[in-house]
Amino acid sequence: MKNILLTIAYDGTNFFGWQKQPELRTVQGELEKVLSKICDTPIELNGTGRTDTGVHALGQRASFKADFKIPVEKIPSVANRLLADKMKIADVQIVDIKEVPEDFHARFSAKGKEYQYHIIASKKQNVFMRNRAYQLDKKLDVEAMRTAAKYIVGTHDFNCFQTSSSDIKKTTVRTIYHLDVIEKLRYQSDEDKIEKAPFEDKKENIKEELSTQEIILSIKGDGFLYNMVRIISGTLVEVGLGKRKPEDLKYIIESKNRQNAGHTAPPWGLYMAEVYFDKQALC
Amino acid sequence: MKNILLTIAYDGTNFFGWQKQPELRTVQGELEKVLSKICDTPIELNGTGRTDTGVHALGQRASFKADFKIPVEKIPSVANRLLADKMKIADVQIVDIKEVPEDFHARFSAKGKEYQYHIIASKKQNVFMRNRAYQLDKKLDVEAMRTAAKYIVGTHDFNCFQTSSSDIKKTTVRTIYHLDVIEKLRYQSDEDKIEKAPFEDKKENIKEELSTQEIILSIKGDGFLYNMVRIISGTLVEVGLGKRKPEDLKYIIESKNRQNAGHTAPPWGLYMAEVYFDKQALC
Repeated sequence: MKNILLTIAYDGTNFFGWQKQPELRTVQGELEKVLSKICDTPIELNGTGRTDTGVHALGQRASFKADFKIPVEKIPSVANRLLADKMKIADVQIVDIKEVPEDFHARFSAKGKEYQYHIIASKKQNVFMRNRAYQLDKKLDVEAMRTAAKYIVGTHDFNCFQTSSSDIKKTTVRTIYHLDVIEKLRYQSDEDKIEKAPFEDKKENIKEELSTQEIILSIKGDGFLYNMVRIISGTLVEVGLGKRKPEDLKYIIESKNRQNAGHTAPPWGLYMAEVYFDKQALC
Repeated sequence: MKNILLTIAYDGTNFFGWQKQPELRTVQGELEKVLSKICDTPIELNGTGRTDTGVHALGQRASFKADFKIPVEKIPSVANRLLADKMKIADVQIVDIKEVPEDFHARFSAKGKEYQYHIIASKKQNVFMRNRAYQLDKKLDVEAMRTAAKYIVGTHDFNCFQTSSSDIKKTTVRTIYHLDVIEKLRYQSDEDKIEKAPFEDKKENIKEELSTQEIILSIKGDGFLYNMVRIISGTLVEVGLGKRKPEDLKYIIESKNRQNAGHTAPPWGLYMAEVYFDKQALC
């Protein structure tokens, strides 16, 4: 019996999220179908985290146990070919594979996760990024967002950043290791582009294009509550827009009340980026 | 009666091309539906060029004549709101609008067009670019492609770059003003990223990501034959892969034979970028 760990990337647009559901196209469902075919035995995947409809992944992880004949390292290319649509590239792909010890489990062995939340601020909306980033039409104050982010880093009760659940009381204490607000930099060569533009109206277009802000929130923690990254992102966006002060974060967190935090940013800006395991768990 | 010129951007993935077709979702069809509603009169659009299923547009143009009450400058925002899907941003958008003289026609008044063809060369396929660029798994020789491109610039009979049609013999002579092979440059700050990576395997990932080639073919001409940009792109890709010599282009063009040119590159790498009109036609 082999225990296999997969690294998976997907564009969440056309999936009803990660988790298998009858009659619906989900990432887990599509992968299990293809892997069961390749391994010639029913495969059940354990994903590190569930993602909702529209949420993307750069490095989702999932493990499965099975006896099969195909060499492990051949699985990704065969699976990706079977998953491929008319574009010849599927919207879900296995990007890495690894045999792991018997007691490894993609969810229970995970020590931390990293998410990215992508934001674009521009007067003109971008047709091509409509399901890849949260698009806003006003510029964001990145420094204010960075100041606000500092209140979130550390170990706190994050009940304020959880979509209220009437479920059994589980701990809502989590540790956030980092929360970076990364703004894509402009280069001198971009300025040159404006100078070289043949017409004035073209210059205006290029200037506007260059004034577009591309921001990535990169957040790493030992675990995340339901919708936590999206609520944090929505709250930081409100800080960036000047609707809240950076210092408000202190009171929002202390209140432990979802009502005090900002809106839940849309799913299509969210990317599950990386999962961290102990080295000894992997070998 | 007003004569209106629109600039339109669209992600062609979920459209059966530009041209209106019964029962199928097309760009022209969707726009006419919404514009007819807004203007409260049936609208028929004249597009500058038709695009095939999967082909994108950054600056498609279309004109229409109608009597209507809504102020011209309000049409884009109202139309874009009506076109929007659950992402709140539609996959087709009116990005500009202008009233033009009575004798203006988006197709017949066009003096030239510019297309872009997007290519990504990387060992790993990019899930998020699967319907936005032609993805290849081998590096391309950009200098060879540039040398080849020089044979295409100028006035030639381009029958070799046309999907063979048994139609009436029309002229296949066209003028290409420029054909630039633009490679996205790497910056010093990218190198720093490798240095700063916390782990060796992370370093390898970043290196691989940075070794990705992003190439845009930018081609401007007075007109284009059916599939001309895609066949030129496929032929230049073959040059970039070393399957053809740059000098072969001379003979391919002189032969006027489609069989001698390269493959037709896929539609999802193609972007209709700009349309050029005489200044006096516009005012």
